[in-house]
Amino acid sequence: MSEPEDFAARLDRFATRFATALDAQLTAEALVGPGTPPERLVAAMRHGALNGGKRLRPFLTVEAAGLFGVTETEAMPAALAVEFIHCYSLIHDDLPAMDDDDLRRGQPTVHRAYDEATAILAGDALLTHAFGLLAKKACHSDPAIRAALVAELVAGSGGGGMAGGQMRDLEGEKGGFTTNDIAEMQQMKTGALIRSAVRLGALLGGASLDQLKALTTFGEEAGHAFQLADDILDLTASSEAMGKATGKDHQRQKPTLVSRIGLDAARRHLGDTVHHALSALMMFGPEADTLRQTARYFAEREN
Amino acid sequence: MSEPEDFAARLDRFATRFATALDAQLTAEALVGPGTPPERLVAAMRHGALNGGKRLRPFLTVEAAGLFGVTETEAMPAALAVEFIHCYSLIHDDLPAMDDDDLRRGQPTVHRAYDEATAILAGDALLTHAFGLLAKKACHSDPAIRAALVAELVAGSGGGGMAGGQMRDLEGEKGGFTTNDIAEMQQMKTGALIRSAVRLGALLGGASLDQLKALTTFGEEAGHAFQLADDILDLTASSEAMGKATGKDHQRQKPTLVSRIGLDAARRHLGDTVHHALSALMMFGPEADTLRQTARYFAEREN
Repeated sequence: MSEPEDFAARLDRFATRFATALDAQLTAEALVGPGTPPERLVAAMRHGALNGGKRLRPFLTVEAAGLFGVTETEAMPAALAVEFIHCYSLIHDDLPAMDDDDLRRGQPTVHRAYDEATAILAGDALLTHAFGLLAKKACHSDPAIRAALVAELVAGSGGGGMAGGQMRDLEGEKGGFTTNDIAEMQQMKTGALIRSAVRLGALLGGASLDQLKALTTFGEEAGHAFQLADDILDLTASSEAMGKATGKDHQRQKPTLVSRIGLDAARRHLGDTVHHALSALMMFGPEADTLRQTARYFAEREN
Repeated sequence: MSEPEDFAARLDRFATRFATALDAQLTAEALVGPGTPPERLVAAMRHGALNGGKRLRPFLTVEAAGLFGVTETEAMPAALAVEFIHCYSLIHDDLPAMDDDDLRRGQPTVHRAYDEATAILAGDALLTHAFGLLAKKACHSDPAIRAALVAELVAGSGGGGMAGGQMRDLEGEKGGFTTNDIAEMQQMKTGALIRSAVRLGALLGGASLDQLKALTTFGEEAGHAFQLADDILDLTASSEAMGKATGKDHQRQKPTLVSRIGLDAARRHLGDTVHHALSALMMFGPEADTLRQTARYFAEREN
């Protein structure tokens, strides 16, 4: 069955096109303000964003929007906004005060390549300009949609989403987490932005309430599958394949679902989660096949 | 002449009303997302925001909007958004990797009261939710205005605004700054958000292009006056009056306009700047008197 290979190639081609769009948005000219962005700040933002990521979140945005006939070009500003948020979160999470990581995708993290202050500011600026991408006319002709996209990305990335999840993760390192606490933390830390990536696409496409609900469930289940696979890979994959330190959560005795329920149960749970993600897409036809493949890929990826 | 006293009392009363609105927005319920914001994150955001600030930026937003008949209540979401940005910037600027400050308005800074990771995340979440305040319907009934407000605040606070200015400030500590470099840094670091605070009010009020242009100039000159006064106070005021360490820029030999041109020339320059700010408001009548007083207050304040 050649489907997974075809899908991987398709994702790679998207990542290449996406990197071109990302490159164009990360320039002193594109980062609009009353002054000129300092070169060092722009360089650090580029270092944190143009690092060969798989671009899974923007791919989800583009594919979800595509269900409604929105082209990749039309979906690109919203897709870039999601990736700006993802990249800012990696830069800040890697800081010494947080996860203290030196490597990210085989390259020095931003605070190692530059310094901590620059990394904090580069993250802040990526976070800020994510909303600039959504607010400008190029994102969507209808300002009501643009405002809805901003509200959606705030929900996915703020205190009740990704940033809140990172806070819970840090609290969990101190111990005392139940299995439910871990699940809630992961839903916020990783799941919320993946959910938003899908919902941004649905909002761009003018999804009905039923369609938005179905895609929200898909996003939640896909996000859960992604995190479960990540926890499993942390235990089983080599550092080389992942381009970052692995076994780290395990060494830190950081609570993960895998550490609680064991590898076999986690793999079964992962299978169920992918099944739930696919079930959520029942109302859609073959136009949703790429989203279906994406959920499978989240579970089967090797890095 | 009792006018300055009356103005200070008016500003105080605004700060009290504003703190009530800020308090209501900094709760787990108000910080909307798919999950529940962790208590520790909300507490750190509150610590960083509900600290008795003078609320000058939101006051400018409310007063600028008031020129066009917008009520304080109507202008409040945009005013809160500006203050969220200001508070996030203080939390991040105080971090050990940045200015390394232990005190802010006489209280421990967020990373001292909590820890560095929590301070980074509290800043990130305040920054994120600032845009949530602007995107929601309560901010303005016209989504085109809401999108314009988001774009404006991105410009004022991102790489070409406040965050870029903080980066330039850190670079300036390494030396080699010309007087022009200092002016550009300060226009971005402090001026850009004050400019945006005024422009947000003008956009809320549906200002004409000429009115927006005049208010933009007012915001720029007022911001410049604010920064000049700050540099002068760093040299002349007591730590007690300021509620933070003073003389610190001087001790660090941090380049300021005052250190370049001297105290007397800086005071003259400050007088000229206030004059420029007042001139910019010529097209407005007595309804702009509070904005005029604000510019004078920026120059005459003692803390």
